[in-house]
Amino acid sequence: MAKLLAISICFFFLALEASSFSFRHQAKENVCQFQRLNAQRPDNRIESEGGFIETWNPNHQEFQCAGVALSRFVLCRNALRRPFYSNAPQEIFIQQGSGNFGLIFPGCPGTFEEPIDEGSQQFQQRPQDTHQKVHTFREGDIIAVPHGVAFWIYNDQDTDVVAVSLLHTTSLHNQLDHFPRRFNLAGNQEQEFLRYQQQENEGGNIFSGFSEEFLSHSFQVKQDIVRNLRGENEREEEGSIVIVKGGLSILSPPERKDKNNNGIEETICTARVSMNIGKSVPADIINPQAGSLRTVNELDLPILNHLGLSAEYGSIHRDAMFVPHYNLNANSIIYALQGGAHIQVVDCNGNRVFDGELQEGHALVVPQNFAVAAKSQSEHFLYVAFKTNSRASIANLAGRNSFMSNLPEDVVANSYGLPRDQARQLKNNNPFNFLVPPQESEMKIKTVA
Amino acid sequence: MAKLLAISICFFFLALEASSFSFRHQAKENVCQFQRLNAQRPDNRIESEGGFIETWNPNHQEFQCAGVALSRFVLCRNALRRPFYSNAPQEIFIQQGSGNFGLIFPGCPGTFEEPIDEGSQQFQQRPQDTHQKVHTFREGDIIAVPHGVAFWIYNDQDTDVVAVSLLHTTSLHNQLDHFPRRFNLAGNQEQEFLRYQQQENEGGNIFSGFSEEFLSHSFQVKQDIVRNLRGENEREEEGSIVIVKGGLSILSPPERKDKNNNGIEETICTARVSMNIGKSVPADIINPQAGSLRTVNELDLPILNHLGLSAEYGSIHRDAMFVPHYNLNANSIIYALQGGAHIQVVDCNGNRVFDGELQEGHALVVPQNFAVAAKSQSEHFLYVAFKTNSRASIANLAGRNSFMSNLPEDVVANSYGLPRDQARQLKNNNPFNFLVPPQESEMKIKTVA
Amino acid sequence: MAKLLAISICFFFLALEASSFSFRHQAKENVCQFQRLNAQRPDNRIESEGGFIETWNPNHQEFQCAGVALSRFVLCRNALRRPFYSNAPQEIFIQQGSGNFGLIFPGCPGTFEEPIDEGSQQFQQRPQDTHQKVHTFREGDIIAVPHGVAFWIYNDQDTDVVAVSLLHTTSLHNQLDHFPRRFNLAGNQEQEFLRYQQQENEGGNIFSGFSEEFLSHSFQVKQDIVRNLRGENEREEEGSIVIVKGGLSILSPPERKDKNNNGIEETICTARVSMNIGKSVPADIINPQAGSLRTVNELDLPILNHLGLSAEYGSIHRDAMFVPHYNLNANSIIYALQGGAHIQVVDCNGNRVFDGELQEGHALVVPQNFAVAAKSQSEHFLYVAFKTNSRASIANLAGRNSFMSNLPEDVVANSYGLPRDQARQLKNNNPFNFLVPPQESEMKIKTVA
Repeated sequence: MAKLLAISICFFFLALEASSFSFRHQAKENVCQFQRLNAQRPDNRIESEGGFIETWNPNHQEFQCAGVALSRFVLCRNALRRPFYSNAPQEIFIQQGSGNFGLIFPGCPGTFEEPIDEGSQQFQQRPQDTHQKVHTFREGDIIAVPHGVAFWIYNDQDTDVVAVSLLHTTSLHNQLDHFPRRFNLAGNQEQEFLRYQQQENEGGNIFSGFSEEFLSHSFQVKQDIVRNLRGENEREEEGSIVIVKGGLSILSPPERKDKNNNGIEETICTARVSMNIGKSVPADIINPQAGSLRTVNELDLPILNHLGLSAEYGSIHRDAMFVPHYNLNANSIIYALQGGAHIQVVDCNGNRVFDGELQEGHALVVPQNFAVAAKSQSEHFLYVAFKTNSRASIANLAGRNSFMSNLPEDVVANSYGLPRDQARQLKNNNPFNFLVPPQESEMKIKTVA
Repeated sequence: MAKLLAISICFFFLALEASSFSFRHQAKENVCQFQRLNAQRPDNRIESEGGFIETWNPNHQEFQCAGVALSRFVLCRNALRRPFYSNAPQEIFIQQGSGNFGLIFPGCPGTFEEPIDEGSQQFQQRPQDTHQKVHTFREGDIIAVPHGVAFWIYNDQDTDVVAVSLLHTTSLHNQLDHFPRRFNLAGNQEQEFLRYQQQENEGGNIFSGFSEEFLSHSFQVKQDIVRNLRGENEREEEGSIVIVKGGLSILSPPERKDKNNNGIEETICTARVSMNIGKSVPADIINPQAGSLRTVNELDLPILNHLGLSAEYGSIHRDAMFVPHYNLNANSIIYALQGGAHIQVVDCNGNRVFDGELQEGHALVVPQNFAVAAKSQSEHFLYVAFKTNSRASIANLAGRNSFMSNLPEDVVANSYGLPRDQARQLKNNNPFNFLVPPQESEMKIKTVA
Repeated sequence: MAKLLAISICFFFLALEASSFSFRHQAKENVCQFQRLNAQRPDNRIESEGGFIETWNPNHQEFQCAGVALSRFVLCRNALRRPFYSNAPQEIFIQQGSGNFGLIFPGCPGTFEEPIDEGSQQFQQRPQDTHQKVHTFREGDIIAVPHGVAFWIYNDQDTDVVAVSLLHTTSLHNQLDHFPRRFNLAGNQEQEFLRYQQQENEGGNIFSGFSEEFLSHSFQVKQDIVRNLRGENEREEEGSIVIVKGGLSILSPPERKDKNNNGIEETICTARVSMNIGKSVPADIINPQAGSLRTVNELDLPILNHLGLSAEYGSIHRDAMFVPHYNLNANSIIYALQGGAHIQVVDCNGNRVFDGELQEGHALVVPQNFAVAAKSQSEHFLYVAFKTNSRASIANLAGRNSFMSNLPEDVVANSYGLPRDQARQLKNNNPFNFLVPPQESEMKIKTVA
């Protein structure tokens, strides 16, 4: 009997294990078949000296389907996020704040030459510092960070920097498996996505893994410097974001040098890597009663062609609608920046797989070709949508120049079983493009009647 | 004992389930290792008022390996297949009949303006209808339907329209999982591939999933129209193909307007979307004693570059052969339009994985690089082969300008252990390109001797 | 009790089977998460009359992660490797020897016309032989073999030809599953990767799978020739590499004809297919005290763009180092040609996943973005690294124009918690690019102090 019991217990575990295969295998096969989509908040936060990083679990079906990993970070005043690179193309949206950032493109020359630092007399005789371009960023910027390119970012203002970041892990540029990976180049903190991979978390940067001998030979420096390189002399609390005492002093004003960029961009070394799509730039689509849309794609920012990503920034007035539409050639990851909206998402079976409020700070994945519509529930519902195509295209189903308005009237009539005058209403009644103003009470009554 | 029994029953189900993992996992890993290929007929039919749609199970290993989903549809006189879009690029071959179709390209303007309908006096004052281009089609056409682009098709003749359609679900343009998906834009019928996904079948189009409030706001129409939009007032039998009473009246003769197309095609909005490869156009390869081949690829029809697909139409006379050859860079899905042929397919191990007749109405997948040869068993064996590459390339192994004829004679001699005169026969005896006429009796005797 | 036993036995097998799913599925999901990388020798050898083929098990996690299959072959004097094609793009590095090879590009004309063979009077009246171009190769050549293109190679010298070959099975050009496949076009030997696929090994070439009737009709030859075509008259020992008695007599000197190639390469038919990266050509990076690097990518050899591959040939002097670096956009497969080196590889968690000697004849996979450094333990450590990108790019972490030297000094200081003078040392102390000479004893003492 004991044996029988042993079997049945074993069996119980086996059954559990087997069904977990089933789930994961199922997930792999049917990863974009949803009973229901969920709007999600970050589920983990890693604190650092100068701010924190929050992550969404990339194993959630929504993110698995879209092939992306989402995170947020906050930088306090004088905080520096130390350099790292990732295994996939990345877009960062600056929700708030401003400062500087750098990308280190392998093989590109250092083109910024620092003037002599007048404040430090003891180094009068040192040669000026040379390094790759330092960029400025401000609220509303999209920053394009290619796979494998090292990135650092710094907050030089009093306002916290708040940023949302998307990694496209199923991009063909990532030749590893589809886990998001950060390769930290300094410190000994945990990389933020590691905990979702069921691996031990010891911390450490790329240099931690090399022997002292290799590093001292390669850098031609003494062992005490090597120990810092390997992250051995860290204070516990430092983490990936450190406070720069007195502020980063060396940064030249890059705006003047940026002007060199206005010429022909011949190589990746001089490519523009960011663009503003925030409230301060002209909108692509605007309706004073309904809201506005701004987009950035490979035509605006050519490096996005290399990354296979684009983005959209939207502002929708209270009770105005973004009509039903679908993303032709991309998954869309919507992050609510401010306020909330009532959103409905419909799959290929005509099932409503999302019907609820997308609240500030939540993210919603809208898979390719799924139909979606939104009605703002705030004075100004603001969002950014990351798209997994460098030339993402939207098909609107209603309104001016929509699917419906471009069908022949008799095809509408016969497809929907309507007399031609009603077909004509379906085609032409809504004169607006994408965004529709709030219903007037008169209109509302007409509709209900 | 009851407990024991319970375990053994449970166990039985578990074992079944486990082995089904095994099968599906195996399928995933080794999906192109075949003991045997099967020529297949459609295994499901969905009837509609105006015709029917037949599908092949896309979960069959052959289709999984090729990453495609195949279907057929028939339109009776005056039948309209209501608009839908798909999550993958698609090619449609018109086996029989003619009529009109439309594609709704998002962002493209409506360029067709209908004249006032003189027959309907009560609408005299209505504005003329504007919509995107309406195309004509006829027997032998290949129609290219990009992923996410809405498509409708109509039969304006007495002859039934019969069409075969291929979806390339593993195309990179499909960023969802690899299931074929139809997004119906009207009606409340089941989408044709749903039953293979073990999901419930409730029917419904994209609009069915949105609330009445959202739809009436977005279209600015009353609720009775919204109900038709959502497919609520449907007759049971309508389905995806409806009969247009009296025929679609509004279609302008598009041939004249097509002429605008002869200029430079600057955008997707004016791209040519179909080409005829049927019997009425000149063949690419022709042999009066053996048959003919016609192909369409990205060089003939540039939109195919965007889709990653091409096609071949073949006609082979009785007892003539298509010599052993392989598809260099594509999977090939052969559909027998008329008659039958004896086909052999060989894998990389030299195993004959298909050896049988491909009969009219059956489809056979020939995976990339597998060798294939055919001998017609009908007066005229007609087929269409869909290829999963926009510039699919065939390597013929025998005959003029084949692998064998392009090897140096001494390499042939030493590779096959033949004296040079026999090597020369192997290289040069067959003077024909691709298609070889029937063996003459004299030749037959010589061969057997 | 017997029943119970039966269950427990069944159960035991089920458990085993279930855990094997687990392993393989896990491998699929986390295929690039390594506890440890292993340097590997070939684990199988298939002998032939004129040489042998060795293979590495492509199911090893390292090769699965990189999506490649590696093999080596040796050709004795007068040995011909009979023609075959593969389901994926391939690079072959000639470690030793020289000779001729041919590629048969489908659709391309035979442009080589052999003169009348004066030695064989009995064939005086035969037409001269026409075939596709015959190429020469020598030590240090990289040969590019596109997917599906038939390839043969011949050793016309006394020295054995030794070659290493990489197939990129996860290339998008391979539309089958990811198993490496050789399609032999002659002989009846086993294809070299078959044994890793748990399929029976019967041997046979592509023609073996077709019926005699099909072949005699297609080639218009008698059955005795067909039997040789099908590999039926083979001696047991022949295998894939056969000895050509008296040597291949027919090869024209291709060097003169090669000159036609110096014009504009308009089509794949006239594309250059090989390039030398060995010791005899100028290096891309050279340091007399440390070593040299030579690379070939799509800019040097345009056909590599079509293949999605490139390569690097390195020579490192004893005790010199290749500084820590990572492959930005490619997996790298390093094969040690001569001597050995101490190599360290670090993953994204800062774990050292390889720390050992890479010995002559061993291969090491360095996944994309993993950091790697090497110190030569031989007078001249020679290696070839195959890269899974046609424009593979290296990011060096130390030395001139490295990640470190391109960071602003104050970012270095704050990222590593160093005073600015030490930050400057980290940036600037190593003046060398990629390769660093051996540490001088003076330097060594300074470092240890």
